[in-house]
Amino acid sequence: VFTPLGLDESRLAGGFWGERQELNHDAIIPHALHWLERAGWVGNFDDAASGRPYEHRGMEFADSEIYKIIEAISWDRARTGPGGADLHAHLDAALDGLVDRLAAAQDADGYLHTLFGRAWQRPRYSDLSWGHELYCFGHLLQSAVANARAGANAKYLQVATALADHVCVMFGENGLRMVCGHAEIELGLVELYRLTGVRRYLDQAALFIDRRGAGTLPRIEYGSAYAQDDMPVREATVLRGHVVRALYLSAGATDVAVETGDAELLRVLETQWANTVATRVYVTGGMGSHHNDEAFGLDYVLPPDRSYCETCAGVASIMFSWRLLLATGKSRYADLIERTLYNVLAASPARDGRAFFYANTLHQRSVSVPAPVNADGLCLRGASSRREAWFEASCCPTNLARTLASLGALWATKDAEGVQIHQYGGASVDTVLADGRRVGLDMETEFPHAGTVTITIRESPGTPWTLSLRVPEWAEGASVSVNGVAEEAAPGVASVTRPFAAGDTVVLELPIEARFVFPHPRVDAVRGCVAVQRGPVVYALESVDLPHGWSTEATVVDVSKPPMSDSDGVRVHLSSADSPARDFPYSVSAADVAPDLAASAEVPLTPYHDWANRGPSTMRVWIPTSPVGTAE
Amino acid sequence: VFTPLGLDESRLAGGFWGERQELNHDAIIPHALHWLERAGWVGNFDDAASGRPYEHRGMEFADSEIYKIIEAISWDRARTGPGGADLHAHLDAALDGLVDRLAAAQDADGYLHTLFGRAWQRPRYSDLSWGHELYCFGHLLQSAVANARAGANAKYLQVATALADHVCVMFGENGLRMVCGHAEIELGLVELYRLTGVRRYLDQAALFIDRRGAGTLPRIEYGSAYAQDDMPVREATVLRGHVVRALYLSAGATDVAVETGDAELLRVLETQWANTVATRVYVTGGMGSHHNDEAFGLDYVLPPDRSYCETCAGVASIMFSWRLLLATGKSRYADLIERTLYNVLAASPARDGRAFFYANTLHQRSVSVPAPVNADGLCLRGASSRREAWFEASCCPTNLARTLASLGALWATKDAEGVQIHQYGGASVDTVLADGRRVGLDMETEFPHAGTVTITIRESPGTPWTLSLRVPEWAEGASVSVNGVAEEAAPGVASVTRPFAAGDTVVLELPIEARFVFPHPRVDAVRGCVAVQRGPVVYALESVDLPHGWSTEATVVDVSKPPMSDSDGVRVHLSSADSPARDFPYSVSAADVAPDLAASAEVPLTPYHDWANRGPSTMRVWIPTSPVGTAE
Repeated sequence: VFTPLGLDESRLAGGFWGERQELNHDAIIPHALHWLERAGWVGNFDDAASGRPYEHRGMEFADSEIYKIIEAISWDRARTGPGGADLHAHLDAALDGLVDRLAAAQDADGYLHTLFGRAWQRPRYSDLSWGHELYCFGHLLQSAVANARAGANAKYLQVATALADHVCVMFGENGLRMVCGHAEIELGLVELYRLTGVRRYLDQAALFIDRRGAGTLPRIEYGSAYAQDDMPVREATVLRGHVVRALYLSAGATDVAVETGDAELLRVLETQWANTVATRVYVTGGMGSHHNDEAFGLDYVLPPDRSYCETCAGVASIMFSWRLLLATGKSRYADLIERTLYNVLAASPARDGRAFFYANTLHQRSVSVPAPVNADGLCLRGASSRREAWFEASCCPTNLARTLASLGALWATKDAEGVQIHQYGGASVDTVLADGRRVGLDMETEFPHAGTVTITIRESPGTPWTLSLRVPEWAEGASVSVNGVAEEAAPGVASVTRPFAAGDTVVLELPIEARFVFPHPRVDAVRGCVAVQRGPVVYALESVDLPHGWSTEATVVDVSKPPMSDSDGVRVHLSSADSPARDFPYSVSAADVAPDLAASAEVPLTPYHDWANRGPSTMRVWIPTSPVGTAE
Repeated sequence: VFTPLGLDESRLAGGFWGERQELNHDAIIPHALHWLERAGWVGNFDDAASGRPYEHRGMEFADSEIYKIIEAISWDRARTGPGGADLHAHLDAALDGLVDRLAAAQDADGYLHTLFGRAWQRPRYSDLSWGHELYCFGHLLQSAVANARAGANAKYLQVATALADHVCVMFGENGLRMVCGHAEIELGLVELYRLTGVRRYLDQAALFIDRRGAGTLPRIEYGSAYAQDDMPVREATVLRGHVVRALYLSAGATDVAVETGDAELLRVLETQWANTVATRVYVTGGMGSHHNDEAFGLDYVLPPDRSYCETCAGVASIMFSWRLLLATGKSRYADLIERTLYNVLAASPARDGRAFFYANTLHQRSVSVPAPVNADGLCLRGASSRREAWFEASCCPTNLARTLASLGALWATKDAEGVQIHQYGGASVDTVLADGRRVGLDMETEFPHAGTVTITIRESPGTPWTLSLRVPEWAEGASVSVNGVAEEAAPGVASVTRPFAAGDTVVLELPIEARFVFPHPRVDAVRGCVAVQRGPVVYALESVDLPHGWSTEATVVDVSKPPMSDSDGVRVHLSSADSPARDFPYSVSAADVAPDLAASAEVPLTPYHDWANRGPSTMRVWIPTSPVGTAE
């Protein structure tokens, strides 16, 4: 339905996300490059190329982090464009160096993985449940396509096509009739098909999608749903199992559905998305309710304190929603992308871009942090209580880097009639419609800090075209003004069709006062609690904002008084609710366990994405409400 | 303070627990013996004795299951006494066979473990975090002491003392200054000291207690608190980390404190118990809030749906409380034992004694069961949704077996003044007080189905002695009658001192009407919910008891109408609370997410320990309460 724009067509300019793209270029990417060397994960390729035995460093998927950082550098190059060449020279050099080193490790038949297949290693494809071989390949392909689209390293694409050809032989109709424990190869194959037009890459991706769910993977402790091998993609009605696996698979299946014109598959995927978002998503947009298996819980199992909400799951959720948005044009997909951007992706990196949340909890009860596990200070995946510089399983920083670098693409699309704006934040769009008409516009806004979005037409053909603006689901009461003439705009899409002239302005006014958010009664874990949201931004109560002696664990909010929001931020009416410990935390007397509401105060909340930036703290998104009639 | 009675002095006779002891003898023990052979865990000893290389079957702690079943058979022999010799002949034979086979695998220096130390295996003591060597040794020692007290196999005690001597050399003051990742050796060493009087066993146990918390264990993903190696026992204020590890350590430390007269250590352990029970215990008495690391959560982190409440943790909790009861005489320790017996231990075995819950969840949302993991149909630890015949980590069935066999010991104790009754259920007590006076009594009761406990004195010296009865913490309004003369008895202990004559009766009347139980407000996970308890028995709402079309997930209870209990069981007033799925499970409108209360009905609850015995079902202990004023 919608055609995506290149990163040279839709660029962010300052503001909330523009600043984060700069942070990505200046800090996150260099930080990741440093750690990939320090941890020895790039060195694995050098050792593999040497032909001598070596001890592999890192997890089974360590190779993929190098591919993801190359993808990030590539998108970052596309984003900065020719004008950014000087600025980008050092990253380009780093990229070329990485490509040389990984290319040297590729086997003659195209296979490329540093953990398997050499005489002293486990055989190729001997551990499809956990080995991540095809998963790594998928990232290489995706990365090489990004690199090719940014117009860069020719050698890398050769590595990719040789690898893709190897996969098509090994796993084709007459090859190993198996799948990888972690979906991703499907995405890479379709992307390579789109770039090269080589149909067998698409066919192979479709084969992997159809093959999953047949129980070809060895059984593991977490069950076959963990890797979505419990039932065919076409039979599932909701996402389940390991969250990133489930979302990557869904995104890849959407790619296959779109490229093969499989409307039935697309419909199934839309249903899976809808059921998942109805019952298995946190208010932040985060997904994943289990630490144990990094998995979805059952419907409405959304405990705030054990929320996993992995950063990579946020990236993956955006990938799936983005593909459904392009395929269907429905604004709800962009709504979830927005929620996920502000409350998962924005939450992960520290302000300096050198530490990250792996899991994004909605409730942190303790300021203490578990001790690191290994001598280099690395946790396996990081505690939910603080951002960490690097992880043994360090998928999140590189995933974040490639997503931030390519973020501009999410802002706008085009179709035969005109341009669609999906996200708000300083940006410029310059594109050519299908009929050759050129369109250019600039977006200025302080969103999400303020609700006014001003779009100024810079270039217009003089004939009518349509500018469509998403009105977010939370923006009841929005309006759109064209050259000063306002009209109400209901949540969904507001479209303006006219022969725009350069200098025309379209102003979207989004109401962003803070509101309480109430949970569905089946979300057992937050019964009797409310959250606070302002625009798409979810807020949190952080201990550092509480009066002296109060605790996030013994505070109730008065919902009879709406939250206040102004330029100073968001505040709510809270009461300290003392509940002394009892010998046993249950009683046959309700009065025995009733909290003693003491002092009340207006207390500021902090944007959830900005918590844990002011030293050790406790935090909660869901705040218990005061018992009726006792809040005064 | 109190002296424990032998299993020949305190015997159960029928009733709730007597029946379970018979089930243990008839079904659980034979079932475990069958699976220990089938799984090859006994075979490991045969292979080890053969001197030829072999592939070890089962987990690192598989050896210990054999020791625990020997312990169970030994206690069961002591329980049945000389009169049960015929009945017991086949179990005695099985025991002797097991002892012969494990003894053949013992090394010349006393070491005995089937997974470590042979030329083709990992070296002894090379993996103290996960290897469970000393843990297995501890179970062997405990088992051998049980066997010796039951007057049986002399060879087994020789194996045990040779092993204990090996441990004292290897881990003594001049040996490896380390501890085992899983406490247990401490318990076994103190028990062996008690049997043999050999002081160095006690000293070695004290050394292990003092050594833990120094960080001698290699760092693992779950952190050093997992194995209580984060701080010295004497500095901790609450239990933390892996629940069974924490409780076994505490029980062992209590043994050391008592035997060495260390009042300060005993005081610390009492504080740890009190803080744990105040903030980290489920209403069932179950402990363990995390599936991930089988660990305690932070204070008040007690999610019903992810409750782990491992059966072994229930056994371990009873071990710790029992030791504190003996050491201090405080009835609260017996209160927790009672709660744990009825709601954790009684819940684990199926009615036929051939399947077990490993985890004991308080909320089961789905009737579906994950597929088994390996070809023999074994899950690693079992789902919380059904009882399973056996597990790869099958610690619970054997732990249950040894506890059920020795249960009579928990019923009564003695001191210089008389006899104390701690638990209620058909039983007979025959003992000799310290001054040589003989006392005999019979207890008759249908408890917990009814609240009347009748104790008839069978033998009395004619001089005054004291009969003490625990009045449970839930039994406000109890009374004690002596030969028909009643007096009120407040929760705690009711004592009667007199020159009892044979035929005297003491009747304890316990009020056991069903009551709602309210949670402390800091237990976030069950805010706005109530549980129902009748006497010590926690009840649950099980889907099979609901009217057609209702769901445990969409039902609220009217707390303005007290639960009803009579001979038909317990019933509450429920309303079906329809809450249709929304596009997104949160709303700025409270009305949007308010449930629609439809039909009301009186619905029976089921004793929690008896759930999942009527086919696939969903279940919840904590039931949401209806909003104020809307329940009619």
